[in-house]
Amino acid sequence: MSHPGATATDRHKVVVIGSGFGGLTATKALKRADVDVKMIAKTTHHLFQPLLYQVATGIISSGEIAPPTRMILRKQRNAQVLLGDVTHIDLANQCVTSELLGHTYVTPYDSLIIAAGAGQSYFGNDHFAEYAPGMKSIDDALELRARIMSAFEQAERSGDPARREKLLTFTVVGAGPTGVEMAGQIAELADHTLKGTFRHIDSTTARVILLDAAPAVLPPMGEKLGKKAQARLEKMGVEIQLGAMVTDVDRNGITVKDSDGSLRRIECATKVWSAGVSASPLGRDLAAQSDVEIDRAGRVKVLPDLSVPGHPNVFVVGDMAAVEGVPGMAQGAIQGGKYAANAIKAELKGADPAEREPFQYFDKGSMATVSRFSAVAKIGPVEFGGFIAWLAWLMLHLVYLVGFRRKITTLLSWTVTFLSTSRGNLYITEQQAYARTRIEELEEIAAAVQDTEKAAS
Amino acid sequence: MSHPGATATDRHKVVVIGSGFGGLTATKALKRADVDVKMIAKTTHHLFQPLLYQVATGIISSGEIAPPTRMILRKQRNAQVLLGDVTHIDLANQCVTSELLGHTYVTPYDSLIIAAGAGQSYFGNDHFAEYAPGMKSIDDALELRARIMSAFEQAERSGDPARREKLLTFTVVGAGPTGVEMAGQIAELADHTLKGTFRHIDSTTARVILLDAAPAVLPPMGEKLGKKAQARLEKMGVEIQLGAMVTDVDRNGITVKDSDGSLRRIECATKVWSAGVSASPLGRDLAAQSDVEIDRAGRVKVLPDLSVPGHPNVFVVGDMAAVEGVPGMAQGAIQGGKYAANAIKAELKGADPAEREPFQYFDKGSMATVSRFSAVAKIGPVEFGGFIAWLAWLMLHLVYLVGFRRKITTLLSWTVTFLSTSRGNLYITEQQAYARTRIEELEEIAAAVQDTEKAAS
Repeated sequence: MSHPGATATDRHKVVVIGSGFGGLTATKALKRADVDVKMIAKTTHHLFQPLLYQVATGIISSGEIAPPTRMILRKQRNAQVLLGDVTHIDLANQCVTSELLGHTYVTPYDSLIIAAGAGQSYFGNDHFAEYAPGMKSIDDALELRARIMSAFEQAERSGDPARREKLLTFTVVGAGPTGVEMAGQIAELADHTLKGTFRHIDSTTARVILLDAAPAVLPPMGEKLGKKAQARLEKMGVEIQLGAMVTDVDRNGITVKDSDGSLRRIECATKVWSAGVSASPLGRDLAAQSDVEIDRAGRVKVLPDLSVPGHPNVFVVGDMAAVEGVPGMAQGAIQGGKYAANAIKAELKGADPAEREPFQYFDKGSMATVSRFSAVAKIGPVEFGGFIAWLAWLMLHLVYLVGFRRKITTLLSWTVTFLSTSRGNLYITEQQAYARTRIEELEEIAAAVQDTEKAAS
Repeated sequence: MSHPGATATDRHKVVVIGSGFGGLTATKALKRADVDVKMIAKTTHHLFQPLLYQVATGIISSGEIAPPTRMILRKQRNAQVLLGDVTHIDLANQCVTSELLGHTYVTPYDSLIIAAGAGQSYFGNDHFAEYAPGMKSIDDALELRARIMSAFEQAERSGDPARREKLLTFTVVGAGPTGVEMAGQIAELADHTLKGTFRHIDSTTARVILLDAAPAVLPPMGEKLGKKAQARLEKMGVEIQLGAMVTDVDRNGITVKDSDGSLRRIECATKVWSAGVSASPLGRDLAAQSDVEIDRAGRVKVLPDLSVPGHPNVFVVGDMAAVEGVPGMAQGAIQGGKYAANAIKAELKGADPAEREPFQYFDKGSMATVSRFSAVAKIGPVEFGGFIAWLAWLMLHLVYLVGFRRKITTLLSWTVTFLSTSRGNLYITEQQAYARTRIEELEEIAAAVQDTEKAAS
C-alpha cells in the first residue's frame, strides 16, 4: 500500500495501539529499524499504573506518573504519536480505525502491535461502575481522590450521625495489590494526614473495609506473604472481610454475600473497585474476524509467538493477551512489546515468521506495598516482607519512572509524605465538589426523554 | 444566640466567607482571639491565584498552588473550615446560608467577613464562557490546559489545512497581567516545549494573538512598562491587537470590532478570556438588604472601614470590595482581611466600632512576567523590566507560596522549565479528551426538552 509521492510511507508501516508499558516498549524497540511507526493511543500520556494509588490518595501529582508520550518519543524520528480511540481493526484490509472528537481516521499497517490493555471488570454488573470507580486511569484516580476527600468534607458538615457514619466508611472491593495499597493508604490518610484538621468529626474514626470473594489477601503472592500483608493491614485498623462477594452496589452502600450464603448490607458513601480486569473490547473485534478465541476476561488467546492465528503480522501483548504463565503486570507487557518489535525487525532482515522462537516470560518477581515502611515481595523462591521489601519497592519504582525530573519530584513527595505524613495533592476541583449534580440532572432529563420517546413509538 | 450545653458557641462567633487571600489572612489574624471562627468556602483549597497561568500551561501541578485550607489551619484550634457554596447572607438575622450537594446549612454569626472574591466577567455575554474559559479557578486552568494540548493533538491528526490553522490559532482576550502571562506561556509552549514532538504539524507555526479593547498592554503599569512588555511579546511572535473589541465568540472563533468600527473574524479553536472581573453575586445579595451600593463590576461600595452601611459587624474585603485606590490584587485582599480581623479583636477588648481608623492600603507595587527571563515591575515610583524584574518576581512568589515543601517543588519545576523548556504537567484526562461530547449531547437534549415545554405551555 504505497502512496504517491511520499518516500516515508514506502517504508514498512508498523501501527502500535496503546501507550502503556507494552506499546511504549514496542515503539522504542523499533527506534533504529527501517520502519514508520504510528502509535495510536487513547490518552496523550504514558501511564505509570503501579503508582496510580498514590495519585488517588494525594501522595503524588498526576503529572508525575503521566508524561506525554510524544515528549518521551520526541527524538525517535521514525515514530509518530496519534491521539485517538481505536474502535476497529480490519484484519483483511490491514488497517485500523480510530476516532477523535467526531472525526474518524483510518490508518493502514504492514505490521500491527495491539497493546490496548484492560479496564476494570464488574463481572457483568457495569452499573456498579458509577458508584464504585475502578483504578485504571488518571481519571479514575482523580475521581476517587475527590470522592474520598469529599466524603470527609460532607461528614464535617453533617448533623446526622447515621449519615456521618456512612460518609466515613470506605470500602475497597478486591484484595489484590491495588486493593491492598488503596485500603492501606486510605487508612493512613484518615489516621495521620487528616488527623486534627476537622473540628466536628474525628477522621481517625473512619472505617476502611477491604473485601474479597477469595479466602485470602494477595492470592498470587502465596499464603505466607498474604497473611503478612493481612496482619499489617489489620494492625493499621483496616477491616478485612474474606469470602465476601459483592452482589449489589448503589449510591449509599453495598450488599455482600458471605461464604455461608447470608446477605448483609454495608452503608458506605465511598466505594473503590479493584476486583477484576476486562481486556480492551478490541479483543472481541479480533475474535469476530479470525480464528482467535478470547477468554472470560476478554483476553486474546494468541499463538506462542503472541500473534493472531492466520495473521503472523498482528501481535497482541500485555494485559490484552492471554498467555499461560504471564501475569497481568508491567513486566508481562514490557517483555511482550519487546518480543513483537524484535520479531518485526528480524523479518525485515529476511527471517521467516514461521520459524519464530515462542515468547518466553522471565519472571522478575512481584511486590506490593501495604503501608509506609511495609511491603511484601516475592522474587523467584525468595519471599520477604516489612521494611526491606518496602525499600526495595521504592527503589525499583523510582528506577522505572520515566525521566530524571520525575524521579526527583517523586522522591521528594515520598520523603515528605513518609516522614511527615503530609500530602501535597489533596485538592478537589469545583466540578468534582458540585457539578456531579449537574450531570445527574442532565442524565435524568435525558432518561426521561428516552422514556417519553419509547412511550410515543 | 447561644446553644444549650455548648461552651464553645458562647464565644463571639466570626464567620469568614472565602478561603482566598482575604479570608485566609483574616482567619489567621484571629488565631489568638477569644472567638470561634467558621470559614465557609466554595473550594477545599486556598488558591494561589498569581501562579494559575503556570498550571494552565503545564509548568507546575495544581497541587502546588492549591493546599487544602484545613491543613493550613490545622493547628488553629479556634477555626473550623467548612466546604459549601454560600448562597445568601441574612443581615437582619445575622446568619449565612450555604449549600453542599443538596444539603443546606445555616450558620449564625456575631461578626462577618465576606471575602468571596470575583469571577470572570463577560460583560453581559455569559454564553462566551463555554467557548472562552476564564482564569479564576483550578477548574479553569485545567480546562484551558486540556484545550490547548487537545488543539495541538487534533491538528496533528487533521488532513484539512483550514481546520489545522484554526486549531493552531490561540486567542487571549484581555491584555492585563493574566492575559500577558498566558499569551507569553502559550507561545513558549509552542515554540520550545512542544517543538519537535509532532510529525505532521510544526508546533512553532502556531499563532498566538493577544487582544484588548484598550489601546495599551498592561494599562495599570503605565505606558513605559506596557510598551516594554509589548515589545518582548512581539519578539516572541505574539501578535498584539489593541483597540480591538470582541463582539462575539463561538466554537470556531471570535468576531472583533476594530477602533475604526469595522468587524472582522478570527478563526481559532482555543480562546482564553481574561478581560474583566465580576464580583461574587453575594454583593447583589447585600445590596438588596442594606443601604450599600454595588458598582458595575458587582463590587460592594463599603464604608472607609470596609463595613456595610448600618452593619458595622459585616466587612467586605478583597476583590469583592470597591475601595478607592485599592487594586484587585492579592495585597488588597491580604491587607483588608487583616484590617477586619484587627477591628473585631479591638472591639472584643472594648473599642467602639464608630471610632475605627479608616482602612489604608499600602502599595507594595505590582509586577507581571512576560516570558522566562523577562518581567516588568513597578514599585512606587520605580519602574524596571527584564531579567532583574523576572528574578524579583520569582523570589517574591516563592516567598508567598504556602509551605516549605511547595516552595521546593515549585522551585524545582521552575528550574527545569526555565532551563530546559520541558514541562511536567501537560497530561489531559480522558474525560477532557473525549467526554465533552457527552456533556454537549446531554445539554442539547436538555435544551430540546425546555423548548418543547415552552411550546406546550
